[in-house]
Amino acid sequence: MAPVQGSYDYDLIVIGGGSAGLACAKEAVLNGARVACLDYVKPTPTLGTKWGVGGTCVNVGCIPKKLMHQASLLGEAVHEAAAYGWNVDDKIKPDWNKLVQSVQNHIKSVNWVTRVDLRDKKVEYINGLGSFVDSHTLLAKIKSGERTITAQTFVIAVGGRPRYPDIPGAVEYGITSDDLFSLEREPGKTLVVGAGYIGLECAGFLKGLGYEPTVMVRSIVLRGFDQQMAELVAASMEERGIPFLRKSVPLSVEKQDDGKLLVKYKNVETGEEAEDVFDTVLWAIGRKGLVDDLNLPNAGVTVQKDKIPVDSQEATNVANIYAVGDIIYGKPELTPVAVLAGRLLARRLYGGATQRMDYKDVATTVFTPLEYACVGLSEEDAVKEYGADEIEVFHGYYKPTEFFIPQKSVRYCYLKAVAERHGDQRVYGLHYIGPVAGEVIQGFAAALKSGLTINTLINTVGIHPTTAEEFTRLAITKRSGLDPTPASCCS
Amino acid sequence: MAPVQGSYDYDLIVIGGGSAGLACAKEAVLNGARVACLDYVKPTPTLGTKWGVGGTCVNVGCIPKKLMHQASLLGEAVHEAAAYGWNVDDKIKPDWNKLVQSVQNHIKSVNWVTRVDLRDKKVEYINGLGSFVDSHTLLAKIKSGERTITAQTFVIAVGGRPRYPDIPGAVEYGITSDDLFSLEREPGKTLVVGAGYIGLECAGFLKGLGYEPTVMVRSIVLRGFDQQMAELVAASMEERGIPFLRKSVPLSVEKQDDGKLLVKYKNVETGEEAEDVFDTVLWAIGRKGLVDDLNLPNAGVTVQKDKIPVDSQEATNVANIYAVGDIIYGKPELTPVAVLAGRLLARRLYGGATQRMDYKDVATTVFTPLEYACVGLSEEDAVKEYGADEIEVFHGYYKPTEFFIPQKSVRYCYLKAVAERHGDQRVYGLHYIGPVAGEVIQGFAAALKSGLTINTLINTVGIHPTTAEEFTRLAITKRSGLDPTPASCCS
Repeated sequence: MAPVQGSYDYDLIVIGGGSAGLACAKEAVLNGARVACLDYVKPTPTLGTKWGVGGTCVNVGCIPKKLMHQASLLGEAVHEAAAYGWNVDDKIKPDWNKLVQSVQNHIKSVNWVTRVDLRDKKVEYINGLGSFVDSHTLLAKIKSGERTITAQTFVIAVGGRPRYPDIPGAVEYGITSDDLFSLEREPGKTLVVGAGYIGLECAGFLKGLGYEPTVMVRSIVLRGFDQQMAELVAASMEERGIPFLRKSVPLSVEKQDDGKLLVKYKNVETGEEAEDVFDTVLWAIGRKGLVDDLNLPNAGVTVQKDKIPVDSQEATNVANIYAVGDIIYGKPELTPVAVLAGRLLARRLYGGATQRMDYKDVATTVFTPLEYACVGLSEEDAVKEYGADEIEVFHGYYKPTEFFIPQKSVRYCYLKAVAERHGDQRVYGLHYIGPVAGEVIQGFAAALKSGLTINTLINTVGIHPTTAEEFTRLAITKRSGLDPTPASCCS
Repeated sequence: MAPVQGSYDYDLIVIGGGSAGLACAKEAVLNGARVACLDYVKPTPTLGTKWGVGGTCVNVGCIPKKLMHQASLLGEAVHEAAAYGWNVDDKIKPDWNKLVQSVQNHIKSVNWVTRVDLRDKKVEYINGLGSFVDSHTLLAKIKSGERTITAQTFVIAVGGRPRYPDIPGAVEYGITSDDLFSLEREPGKTLVVGAGYIGLECAGFLKGLGYEPTVMVRSIVLRGFDQQMAELVAASMEERGIPFLRKSVPLSVEKQDDGKLLVKYKNVETGEEAEDVFDTVLWAIGRKGLVDDLNLPNAGVTVQKDKIPVDSQEATNVANIYAVGDIIYGKPELTPVAVLAGRLLARRLYGGATQRMDYKDVATTVFTPLEYACVGLSEEDAVKEYGADEIEVFHGYYKPTEFFIPQKSVRYCYLKAVAERHGDQRVYGLHYIGPVAGEVIQGFAAALKSGLTINTLINTVGIHPTTAEEFTRLAITKRSGLDPTPASCCS
């Protein structure tokens, strides 16, 4: 599609200045389009938290989460350092305010770099909340009032925000990941409601930072992930002293006279009710697509469960309106997915390219204290797709060399490869729990995309001593019933 | 080859109880052979250091090296923890003796596990030094005297030991990596002679542990590795305060009255002489294959530069004698190579298998403070093999998210992909300097073996935020001349 000069204010208006929107906007300009990018953050209900350009990832997602996870790991490292002979006093305490300040400073520097990058790349940045007037016209609520802008093409990349449960006190007293990374007081004893990856990650670093998180789980842990791995992750967190309230849902949150929060909850199976008192209640029960403010009916765009369904070209049901990132229905909500999809869309729109986004075999990592990363199919999805008789699962426990001296638990250091049983034994999925899981799995994601087979995997020479090499040592199948615990170290 | 019953004491005698020998011996027994494995460690000349079963890797190589590297990284982590808000006093000191004790305890536990493993797997372990009487007969010097044993087949897996330079005082006063990991006193100010990976790794962790290493380099750093990456590794070490004495060779080592070591050395280009005083002199100038004690002429086995040449089946020039591991000529001296080659050899000898060891595209890691890992061809080897016009190098500097808060230098965080220029852009080699390099590169090694192309690499969705994902973000070629420093973080 060639840029249309003149008839509209812009060739492209991107609504949303997060990973997807920015990547799409920058790439569109690079390919000759005149582009505006709208970005607007509504303050959170409880604390009024807001933030700058860059979207969830930079401000209230991957970046602050990884930094707090890192802070938590560094706390562990101090204890390990003592075991290795450093004369460090390992009765250490975190400084929550200093940590928050450091994290926020880093975020602000990224916001700034992002703004400069947009200016350099000639993307017009509009700090405004957009709502459609019609399929080519947007009303932007900006600081100074309102502004009507038109474009040939729109890309909706507004992303999502955390949900609140519909119970008394939820909004008044609870916070979400939108607030946590800039919280002005120590979180203290924290009830984390929800056991998706966000809930587990938050509980994990809070524990590592010396607070007392409890995880409340309605049904299963890490829905959508391999459930054997999910349960190992949960067990490794319980081993670290994080209680899991299973089969439980919150009923209400009340503020006590002492300022603490009384949470009443019940067991969904037995109906039994219970209560406990917390300093902080963190909702991590899922995220909601930000369709409400867009006035999508004006543009005729279809919505499905507060997300926007798109075809394989990221096109909505309206010809000139596309959507990318977390707002689209039924695709992984991940930054690099959003970035790549946004970039490819811009290339197709303005660069004459044809390549579509491949949403299959996307690797991801759960940054719990012992991390979990995977790529490809879970074991249950492989069974569902190919049948249990047609898959072979290679698995093993392993002992990271570095864990011995500080006597860290190796109980949940485990990995598996889910593969075709016969023929070339093509690998369908790889799963790994252990240190630096994301670093370990990334290369294997490229391998999977290159057609990795079990034969290639076990004939790849390991790098010793690493934990990633354990994938090359996988020799025991679940079907064999043999003990998957390790014997020798280096022979 | 079917086991020959009766005519010899054993079907197979493996000489050497290191990674290659043990893997081969255990696999041979598993395939029905009667196997003895000889292992013997001659004490080091200066300090009389010796060790148990398991060979170089377990006792004086990968394992202790990785542990001391880890200790060094944990020292860094303590400083980083302070930046992240932990109230830790980061004026810390290592306890060398506690570290050595911890490392040695771990090694002893591995020795023990190895012995138990051999017993369980019915490998007869003989603590003796073997020398050939003829091609089927070995004389083993054991504690109680001598023992003559015969076998149908021999596998030589004796490995190597560090070389000493031929200069006055080298043997009397210098130590090697054979001594360092059990050294009973703090190393202090240390001259590390040699800039291969062993020299750099030792210098790196000594610096991290608070000592003062200096690296003396005769010609180039990390010979055999990509030289751009090698120089970046050296520069990152210099940035950390490790001086490099370039183009220099030692002339003599003398012990002063105060017990310190006076080292005289000269510049090989200018001829200029200089001297300096050290607490420790560590030779890391290369390793020598342990052929001398084997009496190979008695068996008729050919030797080349103290190594043993073998064919693609690991066969020596003598029909029933094979060699695997560091003792073979012209192959990577790496534990996982030795293990896999030893295992495959045993399967071919006793399991009816035909698969040969593939020594190509073996990934490896240099555990310097900022680690370097690679797989496949170096840039110069790719140029040599295909011509500069036929290769494309994608490269980039990057900034690990975790480095910002503690303000760690990102100056040498760099990676590149060396690829075919035209056609499918098959990837020939990947190179990475940064944290947990081995964990990052391992999966990519499997990808390379699976036929990774640039197109697949850059369409592999990243895991955010990791450093491994930077490989999926490679977009700038050296040929373009564009600035390979990073702009945005998450879009």
